[in-house]
Amino acid sequence: MDALKARIRRDGRHLGHGILKVDGFLNHQIDPGLMNECGRELARRFAPARATKVLTAEISGIAPALSTAQHIGVPVVYARKDRPITMPDQVLLTVAPSHTKGRTVELIVSPEYLAAGERVLIIDDFLATGQTILGLARLAKAAGAAVIGIGVVIEKAFEGGRAALRPLGVPVEALAIITEMRGEEIILA
Amino acid sequence: MDALKARIRRDGRHLGHGILKVDGFLNHQIDPGLMNECGRELARRFAPARATKVLTAEISGIAPALSTAQHIGVPVVYARKDRPITMPDQVLLTVAPSHTKGRTVELIVSPEYLAAGERVLIIDDFLATGQTILGLARLAKAAGAAVIGIGVVIEKAFEGGRAALRPLGVPVEALAIITEMRGEEIILA
Repeated sequence: MDALKARIRRDGRHLGHGILKVDGFLNHQIDPGLMNECGRELARRFAPARATKVLTAEISGIAPALSTAQHIGVPVVYARKDRPITMPDQVLLTVAPSHTKGRTVELIVSPEYLAAGERVLIIDDFLATGQTILGLARLAKAAGAAVIGIGVVIEKAFEGGRAALRPLGVPVEALAIITEMRGEEIILA
Repeated sequence: MDALKARIRRDGRHLGHGILKVDGFLNHQIDPGLMNECGRELARRFAPARATKVLTAEISGIAPALSTAQHIGVPVVYARKDRPITMPDQVLLTVAPSHTKGRTVELIVSPEYLAAGERVLIIDDFLATGQTILGLARLAKAAGAAVIGIGVVIEKAFEGGRAALRPLGVPVEALAIITEMRGEEIILA
């Protein structure tokens, strides 16, 4: 997606240690027009897979997942990291190591909104090590739902996430793939 | 907004103690079509105020704020509750008591994305006690920006938030106003 790649080139910053700052348009401040185009393109790529639900994880997955779900025309569920008081006692829960937080986090979904037989498209802002997405896939499996694809806005190819997701056997789509970050240089595939 | 009110009547649940469960379409599972209509209507109501930015708080404010910002055509910023490593050392930070969490939470915005002279529209999913929104207004003021309005999807009128916001002297718009919850009954204005 050319507009996204151009924006990463213009506003993205490599802060060192593989950390990419894109909080001017993706995960603190959001450019709604660009996000809408990202959602439209992810929906287009997965159209043949006939998803019945989009699944993501709070916090920064919400915007791209909502945009994608809007273009597909299905509901979106975001896994919570804390169990709100409005959730039933019996939930779907898994733990995933958080790359950026340096600890594990819980991913919690109410079984009310993820049911057996659903066709789940997992959407997130980043594919890095793939651990959050593998956690979401475990939640879908626990619900008896089928994961039919994985879509992300930005893939950091040098963190090995795509290989980690291979056992799921589903298509993985990234709108921008960063192959390397060297000093101030961000190299896109 | 009739579609929203109908949905609250159909799917909302009063769990007791003033707690409203709307996680089937608003804050765990999201109905993207309904959310888009909420954003369109909030944008319409605040059109004369010429906002240059939408401000909200993670987590459940993100979806309505993004939809509203998309219809206005301005960026949206969501205040973080933890400072991510991509944020500068110097940030705008305030604390707000969280009604649902029973403790105070931090609201953090990077000064890169909230500047003097901006016209800020604050959007959130709920107006209850108004404490989160007052916190967001303090962040805007600290940045030298002007708050030009406050819009929420659902107002729980019996929690007094509208009176708490009055000193800000800006218009407050709610798409659905709940005046009372009694047993299983949810009473809308």
